[in-house]
Amino acid sequence: MQEQKKKLWAGRFSKGTAKLMERFSESISYDYRLAEADITGSIAHAEMLGSCGIISKEDSALITEGLRSILKDIKQGKTEFDESAEDIHMNVELLLRERIGEAAGRLHTARSRNDQVATDIRLFLKGAVKETRTNISALQKEIVRLAGENLGAIMPGFTHTQHAQPVLLSHELMAFFWMLQRDKGRFADCLKRFDYLPLGSGALAGTTFPIDRSMVARALGFAGITENSIDSVSDRDFISEFLAAASILMTHLSRFSEEIIFWNSTEFGWAVLDDEVTTGSSIMPQKKNPDAAELVRGKTARVYGALISLLTLQKGLILSYNRDLQEDKEPLFDAIGTINMCLEIFALMLEGIAFNKEKMRSAAAKGFSTATDLADWLVRKNVPFREAHAMVGSLVGYAAAEGKELYELSFEEIRARIPLAEKDILDKLSAESSVNARTAPGGTAPASVKKQIEDAKKLLEGE
Amino acid sequence: MQEQKKKLWAGRFSKGTAKLMERFSESISYDYRLAEADITGSIAHAEMLGSCGIISKEDSALITEGLRSILKDIKQGKTEFDESAEDIHMNVELLLRERIGEAAGRLHTARSRNDQVATDIRLFLKGAVKETRTNISALQKEIVRLAGENLGAIMPGFTHTQHAQPVLLSHELMAFFWMLQRDKGRFADCLKRFDYLPLGSGALAGTTFPIDRSMVARALGFAGITENSIDSVSDRDFISEFLAAASILMTHLSRFSEEIIFWNSTEFGWAVLDDEVTTGSSIMPQKKNPDAAELVRGKTARVYGALISLLTLQKGLILSYNRDLQEDKEPLFDAIGTINMCLEIFALMLEGIAFNKEKMRSAAAKGFSTATDLADWLVRKNVPFREAHAMVGSLVGYAAAEGKELYELSFEEIRARIPLAEKDILDKLSAESSVNARTAPGGTAPASVKKQIEDAKKLLEGE
Amino acid sequence: MQEQKKKLWAGRFSKGTAKLMERFSESISYDYRLAEADITGSIAHAEMLGSCGIISKEDSALITEGLRSILKDIKQGKTEFDESAEDIHMNVELLLRERIGEAAGRLHTARSRNDQVATDIRLFLKGAVKETRTNISALQKEIVRLAGENLGAIMPGFTHTQHAQPVLLSHELMAFFWMLQRDKGRFADCLKRFDYLPLGSGALAGTTFPIDRSMVARALGFAGITENSIDSVSDRDFISEFLAAASILMTHLSRFSEEIIFWNSTEFGWAVLDDEVTTGSSIMPQKKNPDAAELVRGKTARVYGALISLLTLQKGLILSYNRDLQEDKEPLFDAIGTINMCLEIFALMLEGIAFNKEKMRSAAAKGFSTATDLADWLVRKNVPFREAHAMVGSLVGYAAAEGKELYELSFEEIRARIPLAEKDILDKLSAESSVNARTAPGGTAPASVKKQIEDAKKLLEGE
Amino acid sequence: MQEQKKKLWAGRFSKGTAKLMERFSESISYDYRLAEADITGSIAHAEMLGSCGIISKEDSALITEGLRSILKDIKQGKTEFDESAEDIHMNVELLLRERIGEAAGRLHTARSRNDQVATDIRLFLKGAVKETRTNISALQKEIVRLAGENLGAIMPGFTHTQHAQPVLLSHELMAFFWMLQRDKGRFADCLKRFDYLPLGSGALAGTTFPIDRSMVARALGFAGITENSIDSVSDRDFISEFLAAASILMTHLSRFSEEIIFWNSTEFGWAVLDDEVTTGSSIMPQKKNPDAAELVRGKTARVYGALISLLTLQKGLILSYNRDLQEDKEPLFDAIGTINMCLEIFALMLEGIAFNKEKMRSAAAKGFSTATDLADWLVRKNVPFREAHAMVGSLVGYAAAEGKELYELSFEEIRARIPLAEKDILDKLSAESSVNARTAPGGTAPASVKKQIEDAKKLLEGE
Repeated sequence: MQEQKKKLWAGRFSKGTAKLMERFSESISYDYRLAEADITGSIAHAEMLGSCGIISKEDSALITEGLRSILKDIKQGKTEFDESAEDIHMNVELLLRERIGEAAGRLHTARSRNDQVATDIRLFLKGAVKETRTNISALQKEIVRLAGENLGAIMPGFTHTQHAQPVLLSHELMAFFWMLQRDKGRFADCLKRFDYLPLGSGALAGTTFPIDRSMVARALGFAGITENSIDSVSDRDFISEFLAAASILMTHLSRFSEEIIFWNSTEFGWAVLDDEVTTGSSIMPQKKNPDAAELVRGKTARVYGALISLLTLQKGLILSYNRDLQEDKEPLFDAIGTINMCLEIFALMLEGIAFNKEKMRSAAAKGFSTATDLADWLVRKNVPFREAHAMVGSLVGYAAAEGKELYELSFEEIRARIPLAEKDILDKLSAESSVNARTAPGGTAPASVKKQIEDAKKLLEGE
Repeated sequence: MQEQKKKLWAGRFSKGTAKLMERFSESISYDYRLAEADITGSIAHAEMLGSCGIISKEDSALITEGLRSILKDIKQGKTEFDESAEDIHMNVELLLRERIGEAAGRLHTARSRNDQVATDIRLFLKGAVKETRTNISALQKEIVRLAGENLGAIMPGFTHTQHAQPVLLSHELMAFFWMLQRDKGRFADCLKRFDYLPLGSGALAGTTFPIDRSMVARALGFAGITENSIDSVSDRDFISEFLAAASILMTHLSRFSEEIIFWNSTEFGWAVLDDEVTTGSSIMPQKKNPDAAELVRGKTARVYGALISLLTLQKGLILSYNRDLQEDKEPLFDAIGTINMCLEIFALMLEGIAFNKEKMRSAAAKGFSTATDLADWLVRKNVPFREAHAMVGSLVGYAAAEGKELYELSFEEIRARIPLAEKDILDKLSAESSVNARTAPGGTAPASVKKQIEDAKKLLEGE
Repeated sequence: MQEQKKKLWAGRFSKGTAKLMERFSESISYDYRLAEADITGSIAHAEMLGSCGIISKEDSALITEGLRSILKDIKQGKTEFDESAEDIHMNVELLLRERIGEAAGRLHTARSRNDQVATDIRLFLKGAVKETRTNISALQKEIVRLAGENLGAIMPGFTHTQHAQPVLLSHELMAFFWMLQRDKGRFADCLKRFDYLPLGSGALAGTTFPIDRSMVARALGFAGITENSIDSVSDRDFISEFLAAASILMTHLSRFSEEIIFWNSTEFGWAVLDDEVTTGSSIMPQKKNPDAAELVRGKTARVYGALISLLTLQKGLILSYNRDLQEDKEPLFDAIGTINMCLEIFALMLEGIAFNKEKMRSAAAKGFSTATDLADWLVRKNVPFREAHAMVGSLVGYAAAEGKELYELSFEEIRARIPLAEKDILDKLSAESSVNARTAPGGTAPASVKKQIEDAKKLLEGE
Repeated sequence: MQEQKKKLWAGRFSKGTAKLMERFSESISYDYRLAEADITGSIAHAEMLGSCGIISKEDSALITEGLRSILKDIKQGKTEFDESAEDIHMNVELLLRERIGEAAGRLHTARSRNDQVATDIRLFLKGAVKETRTNISALQKEIVRLAGENLGAIMPGFTHTQHAQPVLLSHELMAFFWMLQRDKGRFADCLKRFDYLPLGSGALAGTTFPIDRSMVARALGFAGITENSIDSVSDRDFISEFLAAASILMTHLSRFSEEIIFWNSTEFGWAVLDDEVTTGSSIMPQKKNPDAAELVRGKTARVYGALISLLTLQKGLILSYNRDLQEDKEPLFDAIGTINMCLEIFALMLEGIAFNKEKMRSAAAKGFSTATDLADWLVRKNVPFREAHAMVGSLVGYAAAEGKELYELSFEEIRARIPLAEKDILDKLSAESSVNARTAPGGTAPASVKKQIEDAKKLLEGE
């Protein structure tokens, strides 16, 4: 037992590792999450070693059986890892030695922890990309559902947090659909770039054994093998790229959260969240807070932090592997957990959201939000846009001074400022008229938005 | 003149903008760089307006001619922009009004600055992606040339900044080739995602005019049109993604720089940089500093800063356009300039680098760097790897205590610690033997590296 | 002329610097801002050299006169700097050589660019700290003025963007006063730590000349001299610390901006900004956007970016000076300009802000914001707080279901749910009553806020 | 039991919290670390409530006794927290209710979780500041010890990673002492600014009860009370400031690490680390890696990440408390743990470091590192420094071409290039002579460094 705890690499050392150093350098407290990836990778490696005659078929079988039983136990929560054994790789090897004895010592033939851990993370991250894409699609489905169910609802569209022009609520919601669609593309492209097996790169220089890397790649579902062993053990691009994609995703969720938080305020009063995703106050009995949205917005911060950590980590490091790189895992694991939980909670939040469409609708025409329609009407009467803009601008100035909205002006008041005005101009001042007129592709007219929703559905179905 | 300076949007305002506010909010001091993109975009827009009958053919021709003459003047450096006219868009419109009069006021029909600027940046960034990819390829060519010319050279491969195993200098250099190859992929994928025309999205809701967005997209070389007008004016994903790709690229260049800086030190003494890219000291007459490499490493910092700026900028913003987004340009422009200059200087630096191959070679076998080969030899004699590792570990311990390198040990000294040892074991202790043995794909054996270089050349030629 | 352009350090070089390298490495395009600091520092240095007999009194006088005339010309905009002369230090030395000839070559005795630039930045930053503190105080004065003038106004206090409890508008405004007060403290502490002269540290090891560092420190207004020459030329702590203080300051301004942006929205309608600090839309004639506040919020991003740049820059650099450090200046200069302009624009914005107090007041009691007062009343009747909280909670649930606010409930409705209720409970339900009751120090009762304002005034006067 | 699990704030809710939401929003998995701070704060609060007659003396005593027994149990590891009870505050209140019944419901009188958690973090952080300062001092002591014991050792001083001038190893080491000294100052100043009790601020508006905030402040060891209740519950400045100080500290440790990593390389060979803080390789039997230093350098990344998280978190948040702020704790806790462990491991690493002084010494005069001394000698012969610099520059050029160091040149070779040269010039070419000559305060001459060490010792003793 004591024997076992001697570091597997300690041949040349005359003195043990300090307790403080063990605590400082261990990674088993978090890289235990790589257990399945590690063991799966080791099984493929051992099978290849046997198949290539580098170890005997018997040893190969002994090792893979041992590994399978260890994995089974881990999945059933039967295993306790040993912090003094540093990391998941050493822990698994020690467990294997307990079970199958000396043959365990043959597993590490033709590989190093450097290419092993690079393989483990890639395997793990392949799963995470898949999970993330699935969760994004699930959220997109909620958005499409909401957009479809609320097609009639009109709300004020904003620029500069000011009423700009009326839009369909569905159009606003669908804006987030397309952001998420791009997010999925980023994760897919990230995977495309790291879908290559680094195993076989050894410590950094490759290996002296006649291994078959492609066989292992196929067994583990990689698209191919990496092309330079030094790069293979130093490369953490895929983590940086994953975290960049995750950061952009969180930007989107933070913007959506901000909208929901304000829609849910007393002043807006446009949306009510379900009790399920809100919480109360320890002191104020009336509170029902949009915590889910606030936390998503807040958790954006930790994902940005993870990204900057990974970039900082790698800056200026000479090749190839350096121990600094051990610090790649915690930010990655944290970000994977964070974005997926945020995606799930967001879908749940949208599931139970209720809109006060009447309030939205009545706000939609306020703030002179149809002034552009008036200007466009004038342009159709051959007034250059800039002049039309100026005319309507002074009409708005008049209305603001009178404390009236545009649709509250009489035809006389309008004609006094815009002599060209004809009666049908009044029709342009309603929110409905404004929305209906924006029929160009991508615009907010109901037909355009309907088509948008159809396109979105097709995209989701085609996945 | 005074008239002209009145803000084009000032219809409803009763009071001018404060001088301080003008200085605070102007963007013409940096967005003048968008001039060509802006005018090109406006020409396509005006042609479409004419073609669709939204403005007259005459006005369309007048506008496009005017714009072409303005662009010509700008390119010839004949134009001075006016800070009080806020931004490049307003400046161009004012110049146009000077040249063609009232018809200029029809150019802004069916568009807004919001979709206009989104279009301008995308057009501009398309050029930047192309330029960056070209510069990356140019640097890759230098690397391939260097790797090809130095195929025989052996150096110590490092892990943990410690001699690990001997590698070919060409193999080390080629590691950077593959990093850069991934970088190009990231920029290409970024472009793929933003290659859609946002024009026609208006302020945020689309437009009431019967425009033909696809016609404009074709004219400007976009792959298609965006699908949601609100998203189109709020979206700055492509800048974040470009900056993420730029940050990862700089990570690579910073690592390469670090290597060159240390290779160029007295202690390493492996590389000498050309006078052209080094500078001296104001006080120490002997200094010849690797400034080019240091500055590249240092400039990594500003690109990371630009990325974090863009992410921070967008966090938690409600839709759609907010003035905050004006802050997207300076970090982007700075990063584009920085990465391209860094790529160029790096190619120049590699052009003139000279290696001290002898010194590298003699270092390569030091630090017991062939110990793994010894262990591998034992594995071939059926010793489990872990035991082999331990045996060689104590041999190294002995050698270190004696102050000898492995290749300085006598066969007797070896056999005293490794009874299995046979005479041919001594052959394994040279750097050449170690390198030559690593023949698996991606490994450092000359044949493998040669193939790697061939593959790389094909990739570059195939572009 | 050609002669002059030869690099001052080029003695050992056989080949000139590449044009590309000159462009890549020059800093004169931005460090010209250090001109005054540089020359002031050089004058003090030259005087000391003369006073200590290291150069002759005549040369010392010649140099200082020459430098003074150069500074005068620069201040009058008469000087054009030469990019090929790299940086401000070399430019000044070349200008000096033109004016006084060979004696100019004695100025650089006993110093290096490394300690020179460290001195320049510190001198420059001392000015920036002072300017920033002054601008913060000016903004604080605006806040105190506004708070004083609006003492009666009640608004809803928010937590979770939900009405929590009524507060005085003045109390809300004063919250920003205290944030800014801490900001000033941070800048002052930063200065305290860097107020030591690094000159005399030479390239890194000190100097062989019998200089008097304290004399120079006194002449330049430093509190003392630095204690380790290696640290002195490597240290950029003060820039990191300044940028950290600047980032926290921007956090505060971004929060204040966010409040103003929403207060200024149609939905809130609590504040109107002056035309002077708002701008219009190119397409929507009605728009009057809170650009000043949006831009301040947006500019937060570039200051965070600058901070992360400086930290990245220094990470893992060996001692002492490395060329990377040249990259310290642009982020610093940009941040200094940004925060000071933001402070000024904010003061201007507050100068012209108008509050719609009636609308604020009527909102203040909405959202059941006095529920806590009810619970507190029950606690005074000896109900444990938790029980009181639960009772009022269900009363709120009832009111929400009825679509009523608390102050719209009849006494009977209340007593039906809270049997203990007495008539005077109705008094607790007004916003005024709620505000007036919070008399503990730091609370929102008018007397407490008045005292707060008095304390604030005293602090400002005491500066 | 089931009863207890009902949320303490759930009076107005008709539906429970979703399981997913509970997992998403819980903080007990990390804020359990605030247990001691929370209970200590509650005891002081309860005593004050009793003393001010807000609750009865009996209830006060019951509560404080209950809390003390809970704290005792927690310290003995006897307590299991309940995730469904959200956070540490609710967990403690539930435990209290189990022990003392209904009176527990009176503890939360006159406070809110908002001011409670603000108090808890401040209390906790006060301890962390103290711990950090102590650990910094401990590391400084190691540095002073090393510097004192190695006073004779000379090494090459570097700029641009090039030999610049010889320096004392002790001088180089002491550079880090002063960095750490500034770090301590930053932590102290941070504490100075947050050493004010926020309790009594309630949810945001203060409280209606006649509390005595100063009494609580005294009991908890705060210097005073905060002045604005809204600011008090929103303010996380102190966390940002702490993390900024921590980031700058890590910058220093990363630079020190980088030096040790390279000193420990084969090429430098200047330092050997103890087995205790190094580890081996899974594949290469010879490896003894400087993991402690690499990990410290790597962990810099996570502290920068934590800082950027906190800044991002707060950007653009309206007042006062928002749930986003819950995300303040994990980055803070992680950073506190990280920096303190790094400080401890660094002290341990220095404890066992051994220097190869001979190798350092022989390197010190290489790379023409005494060229400046030659130039200074010429200046003393009245040659202007710039000319002296140029002369020595070409001498170095000659020597480099000959493959000689300066000290290897004959007097004739020197005089051929520097006609002014006299025999005693040869004395200037040794590293010792160079070091001894730099006697100005802060310079590297042994006497100056000795004084520096004395000053440092006094500073440490004076703490």
